[in-house]
Amino acid sequence: MTTHSSPYSTLDLEGVRTFLTSLPAIAARLGGTPDEWRVWEVSDGNLNMVFVAEGPEGGVCLKQALPHVRVDPAWKMPLDRTFFEAAYLRAVFPHVPDLTTECLHFDPEQFILIVPSLSGHTVMRTAMMAGHYHPAVAAQVGDFVARSTFATSLLAEPFERVMDRRICFARNQTLTRITVDLVLTDPYHDHPRNHWADPQLTPIVAALRTSPAVQARIDSLRLRFLCTPQALLHGDLHTGSIMTTGTDTRIIDGEFATYGPIGFDAGLFIGNLILNLFATPDRAGQAVHLDMIQTFWTSFKTRFLALWQEREWAEDRSTLYYATTDKSTQNFEKSLFIQNVFQDIAGFCAAEIIRRSIGYAHVADFSVLTDQSTRTTRQKAALLFAKDCLEQKKPLKSLADFLELLYLHMSAL
Amino acid sequence: MTTHSSPYSTLDLEGVRTFLTSLPAIAARLGGTPDEWRVWEVSDGNLNMVFVAEGPEGGVCLKQALPHVRVDPAWKMPLDRTFFEAAYLRAVFPHVPDLTTECLHFDPEQFILIVPSLSGHTVMRTAMMAGHYHPAVAAQVGDFVARSTFATSLLAEPFERVMDRRICFARNQTLTRITVDLVLTDPYHDHPRNHWADPQLTPIVAALRTSPAVQARIDSLRLRFLCTPQALLHGDLHTGSIMTTGTDTRIIDGEFATYGPIGFDAGLFIGNLILNLFATPDRAGQAVHLDMIQTFWTSFKTRFLALWQEREWAEDRSTLYYATTDKSTQNFEKSLFIQNVFQDIAGFCAAEIIRRSIGYAHVADFSVLTDQSTRTTRQKAALLFAKDCLEQKKPLKSLADFLELLYLHMSAL
Repeated sequence: MTTHSSPYSTLDLEGVRTFLTSLPAIAARLGGTPDEWRVWEVSDGNLNMVFVAEGPEGGVCLKQALPHVRVDPAWKMPLDRTFFEAAYLRAVFPHVPDLTTECLHFDPEQFILIVPSLSGHTVMRTAMMAGHYHPAVAAQVGDFVARSTFATSLLAEPFERVMDRRICFARNQTLTRITVDLVLTDPYHDHPRNHWADPQLTPIVAALRTSPAVQARIDSLRLRFLCTPQALLHGDLHTGSIMTTGTDTRIIDGEFATYGPIGFDAGLFIGNLILNLFATPDRAGQAVHLDMIQTFWTSFKTRFLALWQEREWAEDRSTLYYATTDKSTQNFEKSLFIQNVFQDIAGFCAAEIIRRSIGYAHVADFSVLTDQSTRTTRQKAALLFAKDCLEQKKPLKSLADFLELLYLHMSAL
Repeated sequence: MTTHSSPYSTLDLEGVRTFLTSLPAIAARLGGTPDEWRVWEVSDGNLNMVFVAEGPEGGVCLKQALPHVRVDPAWKMPLDRTFFEAAYLRAVFPHVPDLTTECLHFDPEQFILIVPSLSGHTVMRTAMMAGHYHPAVAAQVGDFVARSTFATSLLAEPFERVMDRRICFARNQTLTRITVDLVLTDPYHDHPRNHWADPQLTPIVAALRTSPAVQARIDSLRLRFLCTPQALLHGDLHTGSIMTTGTDTRIIDGEFATYGPIGFDAGLFIGNLILNLFATPDRAGQAVHLDMIQTFWTSFKTRFLALWQEREWAEDRSTLYYATTDKSTQNFEKSLFIQNVFQDIAGFCAAEIIRRSIGYAHVADFSVLTDQSTRTTRQKAALLFAKDCLEQKKPLKSLADFLELLYLHMSAL
């Protein structure tokens, strides 16, 4: 009997070694004999157990779902989330082999996912908190978002293939519920999962909750998240889901994968860049952040439009969009499409900043600011920027509009 | 062995009788003994075999899918379409019991659906072609569209239930492919399935195919059809899918059911009203059509907004949209939602008029005009109205804009 035909049980270090031993292809990748392998736990996120195993020839990363939230055992949770992460990797890896990890093995009974381990890579958030900004990484993430979303959209494939994939990911309801509640609902109401230590944030929270424009916009964003299945999303593309050496960058942790608006992934990423920007004391560092936002957007847009252009000769006419019309109409329609993506980005970016500041799961970025008053000023500025983004007294139709608003709030620092 | 555990075979009249005999609940509904039942074929649509059985106590309608298009045996087709019709009825019947038929039985091996037979009902198209217009029917259809779409949308239910239903109907790919190709692709290109007898229509067809605005708009509508799963649609709501006595109205034939934009069903219905309007010689008759369009829209909008209002006290906050904000913002956002539905209606209405005139499956409405030159004038006017609807040189934001354009083309008659 091999480990992976047993009923589900949470693996410990020895369990991991035994499990890996039972998989010839994985064992071969590690090399040597099992007693030569080094196995250790690297669990870091909120949900799962994560281990790394290294042998003489190579390393793998093993992720196992727990029947509850790792950091809150009372919050029960079905095990199938590693299934969706494996399914996400299988769907997008062929299109972004240089920017994510391959699914080497998925065990549907133990809910274990195995991918190659990353060596020399740091979590992007950790790197940024240490003052290491890599503008090239932003370009790579933009490329990742463009390639993974385009490839899984109606722009790239007959609708039947898109619908088959939607059928699969529409089952990822437990984690989608987390996004709907924690990102797009709870922070805008009184809810026990919300928290913030700094009482000076309280008036801003109150303002968010009483602003009709904020309330209406967040409802529109939630509706759009659930009702615009443009492409397969990573679903949780914050800077903690990105591992980088500065040159080699890999997007990990796709368990929140769902079909949704393309601007969701991009909005979360930019939101996390902006959180780090506001937590960055020096102007030089902030300038790099602004550069990263611009680089990300240009990279995304350029790649997305290039992939669209390549489709122009598809045989099935129903899969062509704006390809058979004249060039100027075509450019106009494609610009409109990209502009709509940008408007989603602005909205989801703001929602991410807010939920990471006053919702359930905060980001660590501001902890680098040891002076309480500085931290307060900067957290307030981030929240007020997000509030303006949602209220859109002046519509944010382009990156230029968005950056203008950002400069305004940076100047208050 | 009962008939319905046999492998699939197409039933003849005697097969229908035997099949019904094997179902105690249905046999009881018919009453008497099987030899007292009258069974006859009423197949009328393009796809399926349809029978009616009547006994001393009541009647049923039996629909069986064929492994091919009924009117074109060379066009092979999977049998599962009656499954989707049954699933559609099960999803919407609780919300519109007075406006459709109940699924009494579905056999997943024979692909047979049984519903109560309708007595005294006429196909709405047939009635209209005979000059019998029932404005009240338009109000009932508007009510049907409002109740069936609202109940299956994110506005009425937690997203998990909506996603479960989307998973089911995303498998209805064969019939969705027909809609995508026949309604939203083929008529805009040279394709062997297109046809029109009148050479005077040819220049308009050429104009449709070379208009960048038409091409772009039809691509946008196809993208919207496939990427805006707002609600469960009937999917083929033309006047041949409506049976009425003038007072009692039932929507039938929901086998094209799919999740899509709410304006799709409404657009198809209005498109068919307009086709009949242009085929109606007298001004008085045309005035009734205009009244029906207005009545339909008012009925739909009023009911939809009333149902939305009733949801305001739902417990799960994430299912509330524009409910917690102030009244004026709430009204503004809801108006915007309804306006977007209207813009979809204008587009899908035009697509329906075009495909029913120059695509694969035409409507019979114009056959009442025996004078060829009158018919030509009127078919041209209908097509030119549809072309203007798609080109939207002036945006069609409301029913008033839409009717203004319609009057313009009617005045050319």
